[in-house]
Amino acid sequence: MSSDLLSPLFTTGRMAEAFSDRARLQGMLDFEAALARAGARAGLFPAAAAAAIAARCRAELFDAAELGRAAARSGNPAIPLVAALTALVAGDDQGASRWVHLGAASQDAMDTGLVLQLRAALDAFEDGLERLSRALAHLAGEHRWTVLSGRTWLQPAEPVTLGLKAAGWLDAVERHRRRLGEVRGRALALQLGGAAGTLAALGPGALEVARLTAEELELALPDLPWHAHRDRPAEVATALGLLAGTLGKIAADVALLAQAEVGEAREPAAPGRGGSSSMPQKRNPVGSAVAGAAAVRVPGLVATMLSAMVQEHERGPAGWLAEWETLPEICLLVGGALDHVAAVAEGLEVDAPRMERNLAATQGLVHAGAAAAALARHLGRAEAHALVEQASRAAAQEGRHLRAVLAEDRRVQACLAPADLDRVFDARAAAGVAGALVDRALAARAGSRKR
Amino acid sequence: MSSDLLSPLFTTGRMAEAFSDRARLQGMLDFEAALARAGARAGLFPAAAAAAIAARCRAELFDAAELGRAAARSGNPAIPLVAALTALVAGDDQGASRWVHLGAASQDAMDTGLVLQLRAALDAFEDGLERLSRALAHLAGEHRWTVLSGRTWLQPAEPVTLGLKAAGWLDAVERHRRRLGEVRGRALALQLGGAAGTLAALGPGALEVARLTAEELELALPDLPWHAHRDRPAEVATALGLLAGTLGKIAADVALLAQAEVGEAREPAAPGRGGSSSMPQKRNPVGSAVAGAAAVRVPGLVATMLSAMVQEHERGPAGWLAEWETLPEICLLVGGALDHVAAVAEGLEVDAPRMERNLAATQGLVHAGAAAAALARHLGRAEAHALVEQASRAAAQEGRHLRAVLAEDRRVQACLAPADLDRVFDARAAAGVAGALVDRALAARAGSRKR
Amino acid sequence: MSSDLLSPLFTTGRMAEAFSDRARLQGMLDFEAALARAGARAGLFPAAAAAAIAARCRAELFDAAELGRAAARSGNPAIPLVAALTALVAGDDQGASRWVHLGAASQDAMDTGLVLQLRAALDAFEDGLERLSRALAHLAGEHRWTVLSGRTWLQPAEPVTLGLKAAGWLDAVERHRRRLGEVRGRALALQLGGAAGTLAALGPGALEVARLTAEELELALPDLPWHAHRDRPAEVATALGLLAGTLGKIAADVALLAQAEVGEAREPAAPGRGGSSSMPQKRNPVGSAVAGAAAVRVPGLVATMLSAMVQEHERGPAGWLAEWETLPEICLLVGGALDHVAAVAEGLEVDAPRMERNLAATQGLVHAGAAAAALARHLGRAEAHALVEQASRAAAQEGRHLRAVLAEDRRVQACLAPADLDRVFDARAAAGVAGALVDRALAARAGSRKR
Amino acid sequence: MSSDLLSPLFTTGRMAEAFSDRARLQGMLDFEAALARAGARAGLFPAAAAAAIAARCRAELFDAAELGRAAARSGNPAIPLVAALTALVAGDDQGASRWVHLGAASQDAMDTGLVLQLRAALDAFEDGLERLSRALAHLAGEHRWTVLSGRTWLQPAEPVTLGLKAAGWLDAVERHRRRLGEVRGRALALQLGGAAGTLAALGPGALEVARLTAEELELALPDLPWHAHRDRPAEVATALGLLAGTLGKIAADVALLAQAEVGEAREPAAPGRGGSSSMPQKRNPVGSAVAGAAAVRVPGLVATMLSAMVQEHERGPAGWLAEWETLPEICLLVGGALDHVAAVAEGLEVDAPRMERNLAATQGLVHAGAAAAALARHLGRAEAHALVEQASRAAAQEGRHLRAVLAEDRRVQACLAPADLDRVFDARAAAGVAGALVDRALAARAGSRKR
Repeated sequence: MSSDLLSPLFTTGRMAEAFSDRARLQGMLDFEAALARAGARAGLFPAAAAAAIAARCRAELFDAAELGRAAARSGNPAIPLVAALTALVAGDDQGASRWVHLGAASQDAMDTGLVLQLRAALDAFEDGLERLSRALAHLAGEHRWTVLSGRTWLQPAEPVTLGLKAAGWLDAVERHRRRLGEVRGRALALQLGGAAGTLAALGPGALEVARLTAEELELALPDLPWHAHRDRPAEVATALGLLAGTLGKIAADVALLAQAEVGEAREPAAPGRGGSSSMPQKRNPVGSAVAGAAAVRVPGLVATMLSAMVQEHERGPAGWLAEWETLPEICLLVGGALDHVAAVAEGLEVDAPRMERNLAATQGLVHAGAAAAALARHLGRAEAHALVEQASRAAAQEGRHLRAVLAEDRRVQACLAPADLDRVFDARAAAGVAGALVDRALAARAGSRKR
Repeated sequence: MSSDLLSPLFTTGRMAEAFSDRARLQGMLDFEAALARAGARAGLFPAAAAAAIAARCRAELFDAAELGRAAARSGNPAIPLVAALTALVAGDDQGASRWVHLGAASQDAMDTGLVLQLRAALDAFEDGLERLSRALAHLAGEHRWTVLSGRTWLQPAEPVTLGLKAAGWLDAVERHRRRLGEVRGRALALQLGGAAGTLAALGPGALEVARLTAEELELALPDLPWHAHRDRPAEVATALGLLAGTLGKIAADVALLAQAEVGEAREPAAPGRGGSSSMPQKRNPVGSAVAGAAAVRVPGLVATMLSAMVQEHERGPAGWLAEWETLPEICLLVGGALDHVAAVAEGLEVDAPRMERNLAATQGLVHAGAAAAALARHLGRAEAHALVEQASRAAAQEGRHLRAVLAEDRRVQACLAPADLDRVFDARAAAGVAGALVDRALAARAGSRKR
Repeated sequence: MSSDLLSPLFTTGRMAEAFSDRARLQGMLDFEAALARAGARAGLFPAAAAAAIAARCRAELFDAAELGRAAARSGNPAIPLVAALTALVAGDDQGASRWVHLGAASQDAMDTGLVLQLRAALDAFEDGLERLSRALAHLAGEHRWTVLSGRTWLQPAEPVTLGLKAAGWLDAVERHRRRLGEVRGRALALQLGGAAGTLAALGPGALEVARLTAEELELALPDLPWHAHRDRPAEVATALGLLAGTLGKIAADVALLAQAEVGEAREPAAPGRGGSSSMPQKRNPVGSAVAGAAAVRVPGLVATMLSAMVQEHERGPAGWLAEWETLPEICLLVGGALDHVAAVAEGLEVDAPRMERNLAATQGLVHAGAAAAALARHLGRAEAHALVEQASRAAAQEGRHLRAVLAEDRRVQACLAPADLDRVFDARAAAGVAGALVDRALAARAGSRKR
Repeated sequence: MSSDLLSPLFTTGRMAEAFSDRARLQGMLDFEAALARAGARAGLFPAAAAAAIAARCRAELFDAAELGRAAARSGNPAIPLVAALTALVAGDDQGASRWVHLGAASQDAMDTGLVLQLRAALDAFEDGLERLSRALAHLAGEHRWTVLSGRTWLQPAEPVTLGLKAAGWLDAVERHRRRLGEVRGRALALQLGGAAGTLAALGPGALEVARLTAEELELALPDLPWHAHRDRPAEVATALGLLAGTLGKIAADVALLAQAEVGEAREPAAPGRGGSSSMPQKRNPVGSAVAGAAAVRVPGLVATMLSAMVQEHERGPAGWLAEWETLPEICLLVGGALDHVAAVAEGLEVDAPRMERNLAATQGLVHAGAAAAALARHLGRAEAHALVEQASRAAAQEGRHLRAVLAEDRRVQACLAPADLDRVFDARAAAGVAGALVDRALAARAGSRKR
């Protein structure tokens, strides 16, 4: 799941580390160490044995490639890892080696190990979302009154403000923060069920061992083992899938604003960033592209996690194996996208005069809705709409300003004084309650930080 | 999205009604009525006008097929619906017709209408989940001590109980209930933004109109309009996607238990249910099949909802249109699956003696883990594992019981007395803390109902 | 799968008819009629019985809603259909009714019926692709020399021609025609296997009955029944998925060209097309939006068809049921997208002067690559690239034309005469071999029609 | 995309090598070498320069990690690779370095490099499919008369033969061979378009350079560059997606047959294969699990490739980047699945006596269809079906053999003599034309090898 050639572009170092082979091994080893300590605390074996086991639970003592070759036979990497750990411990303390992995199944090690990796990932997401939220709040505040074309169906609609645009992005990002908080509470739970979910090999004190293992790892203790019920990891995937969609949306907005013919905003410049091997003038929107690519890739991966939920009886082979690389890949991609979008938001180059020029270039057409609304009070919505539709077509065909065309219309003259028309064609007025909406978004962000 | 021929099999009447053309129209019309009342309450026009509008906001007054043909030109069905509504109102009260749809965009009507449909769907899901939860709780309690093979990788593993199996299903279902509760709070929110999200056409009192519209519809009032930020509807899709996975897992478990060669449980019988046009003896697991089919179909549809989130600027055409049939289809499919699985859970025919016979037919192999665990206390985990592995192979090849093979082994004789071996091969003991886990699941369910 | 309100926008009447309940019934009935005739021709029963059966194989004699309710119990609609057909035939000729559905399974009727529906759909796709191909060929020829900005990463790159753009679209469309031809040969095959694929109930003459049934239906006779091997229908889905991608790409190109700030092309106008309920000036790109929506929706549906391929043993319930609505939905969506894109291609409004103005507005930056290439012959690629990169940055910052900046550079003066610079900054020259490539695409199209 | 810990389980060494960072670099470098030679052959620069360039086009001369870090800035790895290659060549021959990458875009190097990697992958798939086809043909021939339960909806249906099962698998595999052959002809095509697809920087001889580059690489020369038209790589994905579905189906069949309660076939044994860390008796179906996991994962990845096809104008950033890891991942997963399924097919352990015992354990119910068919000739299909349905229910409830129950029925006695009943309940007769179908599949395989 990692490529030296592509990973630096697609993800972050922190996320790549969280899902490296080393971290996967360490996750399983942390589980084994905690299980050993819990077993000793529960009185199943001496504390010294647990200490001897825990002392060897360090990923750097193991050879991932060798374990990988063995896993190709056994069907999962926990089996050879447990064997190798047992052998290492036996070298130190033959007695202690008896207690390695006591009562646990391979899946317990792999699932709990994954949960520990996910905890690191969710920490990173929290930081990344806070960084992005802060940058967007700054943009929203700074550009509360920066007016530009609102665009629907990729056509100029009505004026909006860049502040409102950023507030919309921010509002969605804050929802994702809340979602990930909820998911965290459910997903970061110990998996310990033993061979088939009954913890049989741990005897009557099994539930106490589970409680202590969770305590050792600072994970939630679930009511039941969840090895065959995959909604926990799948929910992490869906929450990140939703986040990927929002990041892709922000990225698309930026890439569209950055088109030369629009030119209203651009990704921050950096030496060598977004160049081309054939075109020296190029400054490609690399951040938007990476986030956009994640938004293309993640939905299919989320679908995989959902499809994989149908796991037979007490452990379904195909579905479980299908998760192993998929959920990490989702984290890597969304982590990278978040990092890129945060950097773009922090350094976005805004060309407010160009925004005004583009608005002006519509020759008043972005105020057609406002004109219709003003006329509707007098003529009714339907007639006003038809009148302005016709005037808009005339303005476009004749290359004239909509205001001029309307001003000639008798029905308009009967309803609206020149001052009324002024108001209709005033961009800031046209931005409606955009400023108030920005305030709401900023207040909501501030409020959620206080709680 | 509906077929007279297939819908009755795939979904429920309640869900089909919630996503009928009629309900889609009524959702938009409920929005228009509420907007009119809110506008009047805010003082924009007389209450009588609002009443005249609201009086015509009844789906049965409109012709879906005709509106559909017009929508093929305009690009969405709200445009011709608003036009038709305006004409109808004008027939009653020319003055009132001026205020139809005032300040709103097509998307406001369509999105809020969808939210109203989703509310009906989420109500139905709540009821369905409660029904399924109750049935599973009953199964878990009744079969607390019904022992059967736990199966991993589709192979006998260790004994479990049917109660534990049902408790595992129940535990997951309860998580879905909580998730849908959280989603409900976010998703059932008014959408009112006007042409580009600034509510410009509603003037300075726009936010008050929005507040009152939400109040009229008993929907949450969001901080910002969310027309271009689709995480709200997409989250409904992901939550239902997770539920589909769990339903598919339960369905797969039942279908596998129902195999003639396993024969441990069957779907409830009913005349003509699960027949065949060529094989008179057939009793096919129809409920499991439908739920399984939903689990196959929904992931791709969820991916669509996530892909569709990348909506450009203030209204992205392709992504928005892509949602219109997709989210309803997810609701229909998961609603049908939930109904089928609930019926299966309520009427599941359990063959406990067959479960015992199947366990016995493994000739003790399902106790190999327990034997290894017992020996591990004396020989260490690795050596005990190897010993039992060899004995298991011998037992299988010679067609003998594992206990007999082990009893002959000197190393075993040195560690375990016959009474110890009795314990190792006792199925109920082997089910470990299954009973305690069942209790936990039932207590959690009861607890969540109290809160 | 159909909605009166949305289907007219999303698909065509022809495709909607091909996948109506009526057509689904007729497909199954055509199978039953052909099977009866084949059985009689093979001597299994009298020709008169076959005639009596065939006489009742008309969809209008059956009530889809009633069959649908029965299918909700039996698990598929073929079972009640066969029962209803048998009863109808028995009303005419008790003896003949014995031979209805002889030797066939429900799946034989449903799969072969589906194949007949797919044949109608593939015919429609052939016509639609020919229409689109013709329109694109016309565009390519007409605009062989219409120069516009080539855009990469949504940034101006180098000049291309609209002819080349259209030729690229055409070239892809022609590949899809070839693919659908190959798929047709594999997919339009009879399914007749009986209860479990052995045709046992048809006795020793079973293969002859199969041969004659295929002949009656003018379908290919496969080597083996394929009920449990779903690559045939799934391949139709993948081929249409590829087509959806190309249509989405064309649609995206058009929608981007149609942005007001670009304004180089627009969808054909029609009264009421692409309006807005709030903005009278709007002319939304409806065709592009519908095709874009299909490109968003179809990938997930294709994934469903692929996931559904894992069908257990001789008939897998979940997977098979998952196909029933999914493949029709793919056909409906891609059929609608094809129709919309063909209409757009036929009526595309091209603004060639605007293309020139946009090119000119880059102030020569689109020729940076050409400048670098010209200098590379003297300075080497790397140094030339760096020089032009710097000059481009200077030009952009100072708002000057790149040619002017370069002309001042001593290294440039040393290599290139003013006439050389003229060539570098000549748009038509810059379009390279675009004209020759257009000719190739047109020749390939013509050639494939001759064969 | 590779993990030392998991890749050996999920894919093959050959496929892992084809999609290593090294192979990705070498693919791009092979393109650069071929382009240089072609440029020299076309007379654009001296052959010695081409030779100097080609001499450095060896992946081991470059540092993937360093290039990866640079690619994180530039947006793709071809840019720093070309820079590094230019520097290396300049070290040998300053003059030659001018001609590195002449006229090409980054995408030309990356796409053509990918095509070269795909060629290696398609070669491996051809070998793997031949291996699987051979093993399945052997199984089909050897078990032409090995009778077992045909199973529909996971319930016993009618007897089939293992030979027919294998022939069905084989028939599908052969279709995949043909599909991959067709795809190969389209997909293995040079991409050379220059900055925006006009080859402008190569001057009037551009098409000749393209022809020669294709010749150098032994790739097809396409009519047009295809950088923005992604149906070629996407089609590779869909064809492999179809193959993954068939492999998943075979894997599911084997895993279901291998259930202890069915026990009709098992994956080949090998020391340590399919073990468990907690259960010494386990022999898990690892091959089926890996192939099953691929069938779960690949559909989502195919959907990604289809979604990614919507690439804007002359180079769409997000979509293109989304392909880079996705298509390789599909190849890796399907390659691994094919390898596992081929090994399973070669070594499948068949328990024919158990198949007979399982058939017998249905107490004649698998012959219910045959009984109904025999009676239908006398009573008509509907009445015969009802009679046998009732008898089947009685047999099941009373634990008696269906034959015995039927033999007591007067209506049966009136129609069928004991010898007729013997035929009805004869398993081999019940397998119908299974033998003839096996012959057809083997003949088709043989025939396709001759052509």
